[in-house]
Amino acid sequence: MHEFRQNPATGEWVIIATERSKRPEDFKSKKAGNKILLPPYDPACPFCKGNKAEAEASLYQIDDKEGWQLRVLLNKYAALNDSENPERVADGMFLKAGGYGISEVIIETPHHNSTIATMNIETVEEIIKAYKTRYNEISKDDNITFINIFRNHGSSAGASLVHPHSQIIGSLVTPPHVSDQIYHARQCFNTWGTCIYCDILNEEIKRKERIVLETDHFVAFCPYASRSPFEIRIFPKRHSSVFGNIMNEEKDLALILKTVLAKLYKLLDHPEYNYVIRSIGTNDGEVQFYHWYLVIIPRITGVAGFEIGTGMYINVTTPEDCAELLRNEKVE
Amino acid sequence: MHEFRQNPATGEWVIIATERSKRPEDFKSKKAGNKILLPPYDPACPFCKGNKAEAEASLYQIDDKEGWQLRVLLNKYAALNDSENPERVADGMFLKAGGYGISEVIIETPHHNSTIATMNIETVEEIIKAYKTRYNEISKDDNITFINIFRNHGSSAGASLVHPHSQIIGSLVTPPHVSDQIYHARQCFNTWGTCIYCDILNEEIKRKERIVLETDHFVAFCPYASRSPFEIRIFPKRHSSVFGNIMNEEKDLALILKTVLAKLYKLLDHPEYNYVIRSIGTNDGEVQFYHWYLVIIPRITGVAGFEIGTGMYINVTTPEDCAELLRNEKVE
Repeated sequence: MHEFRQNPATGEWVIIATERSKRPEDFKSKKAGNKILLPPYDPACPFCKGNKAEAEASLYQIDDKEGWQLRVLLNKYAALNDSENPERVADGMFLKAGGYGISEVIIETPHHNSTIATMNIETVEEIIKAYKTRYNEISKDDNITFINIFRNHGSSAGASLVHPHSQIIGSLVTPPHVSDQIYHARQCFNTWGTCIYCDILNEEIKRKERIVLETDHFVAFCPYASRSPFEIRIFPKRHSSVFGNIMNEEKDLALILKTVLAKLYKLLDHPEYNYVIRSIGTNDGEVQFYHWYLVIIPRITGVAGFEIGTGMYINVTTPEDCAELLRNEKVE
Repeated sequence: MHEFRQNPATGEWVIIATERSKRPEDFKSKKAGNKILLPPYDPACPFCKGNKAEAEASLYQIDDKEGWQLRVLLNKYAALNDSENPERVADGMFLKAGGYGISEVIIETPHHNSTIATMNIETVEEIIKAYKTRYNEISKDDNITFINIFRNHGSSAGASLVHPHSQIIGSLVTPPHVSDQIYHARQCFNTWGTCIYCDILNEEIKRKERIVLETDHFVAFCPYASRSPFEIRIFPKRHSSVFGNIMNEEKDLALILKTVLAKLYKLLDHPEYNYVIRSIGTNDGEVQFYHWYLVIIPRITGVAGFEIGTGMYINVTTPEDCAELLRNEKVE
């Protein structure tokens, strides 16, 4: 199969070219470092209990009788911080602004060798609650226009520490990659009168072939125009454009996220991955035309000159095949 | 330094964050495989003289008294080919089309262990001529709307064979990554009445601090909003939106490309890289608002959740520092 497929939400195209296709074995991680051979405590890890990061003040914390279970800290090594000048300034013909932003690290658990795929569900629920709390807190800063929540898992996914953690960054500027997507969704609404993400969700539920898992309030699927093998999107069924407005009864985001990551973990032998929560800008609020979601990108293929030159990805698998493999992968 | 900088040609933002900054040593390749320890001929290489690819017909060829010196072949393992159906077809609510395109490989030299940084200048001039000839030939196909010329150097840059080669791919669809950039340039022209790329070129020549090298018809510089360390753009001084219209007297593209790559080779110990030639769509022709160019991306840093989620890159160096190091690096 060689075909172009368009993502209707962004206008982006991908190429599905399965003559180069591979079996799940070919995507399995070759690096022993990816398997969980880590100790539950590492004396050299700043995030482990009693170690270096303990000296930092928590912005948010969950405790039980054994002490802290989750902590949110300011990222000391951040590319953006709130002491920079947020003003736009001309630099000859160019435009610049101080690197104003808020960067925080969520230490998800004291257990050095844990990861979402293997955590108990209550811990994952606490992580989601921390995301929501910090998202809403950072939203209050009038200089912040956009918040990105993400998790880098594995060194090739950009994680510099193995201790389980996520990050949340609020940014002064909203990049075109984000604003163009939101603009495109608005155009779809102007044309069809519906949220393009709700439309996609309804289509996927009807078609079934790309569904990975459905829970009470969420659907996980491999998108029609997947840019890479085993890309997974998790959409809330309830229309909402602001992640920070996730409701208490939608706590099954933790269940669907953990289960999907456990399926990936088993099928691909613990791949490195990134996940990202995409929400509308913090000054936009609830709108009819946009829909927050979470996207998981296993880091099993790279980009070359074609992707750099065109922004168009060549995917060597179909999302239908990936979804079927993930659906059939049994996890407890 | 922590600052946002905007690329005026695309509206894209980058973050320059030099507190994480590194010296050139930190970017040097650690992989011995990157150094040229290769033999001049490899019996297992399909592109070496007398080997497997010799059985394929040349679409373009340069010979001397020792036989072929450069060949262009159809890429047999291509994601796109011209036997697919170019028609757009509805797939439920989604849109797709056959993977129609033309994919060719330019075998740049018979010498297995050569690379542009070390080639003689006449060979590089022949490579550019081959790019031009094939660009103009592929442009004639009415189903092709966009042509990408690129070179993947090194395995992490996506090269599956080490024998020196480039690729040229004509595509049925023009991806938004490209068309949005062209649209943005048109808006700049509508506003200011000038080509935004000409404006950038004039500003860089005036400011000097980001210039790497200037030849009769070209300027190489590290762009103001560089997405990664040692990113280099080569702009033609003569306004032209179509790479295929490069003139015979502009043959110093070979000189500037070879010299800049030789500087990178020496400064960063032969890094892996991609370069890409960006031109307007093949149905657009010469326009006042767009300008073709070549971009070189050394593959020395990766992307993580923040870049995936925002499309905004964190660059740990300033283009001013990179340009100064490259300017001062003497090559013959």
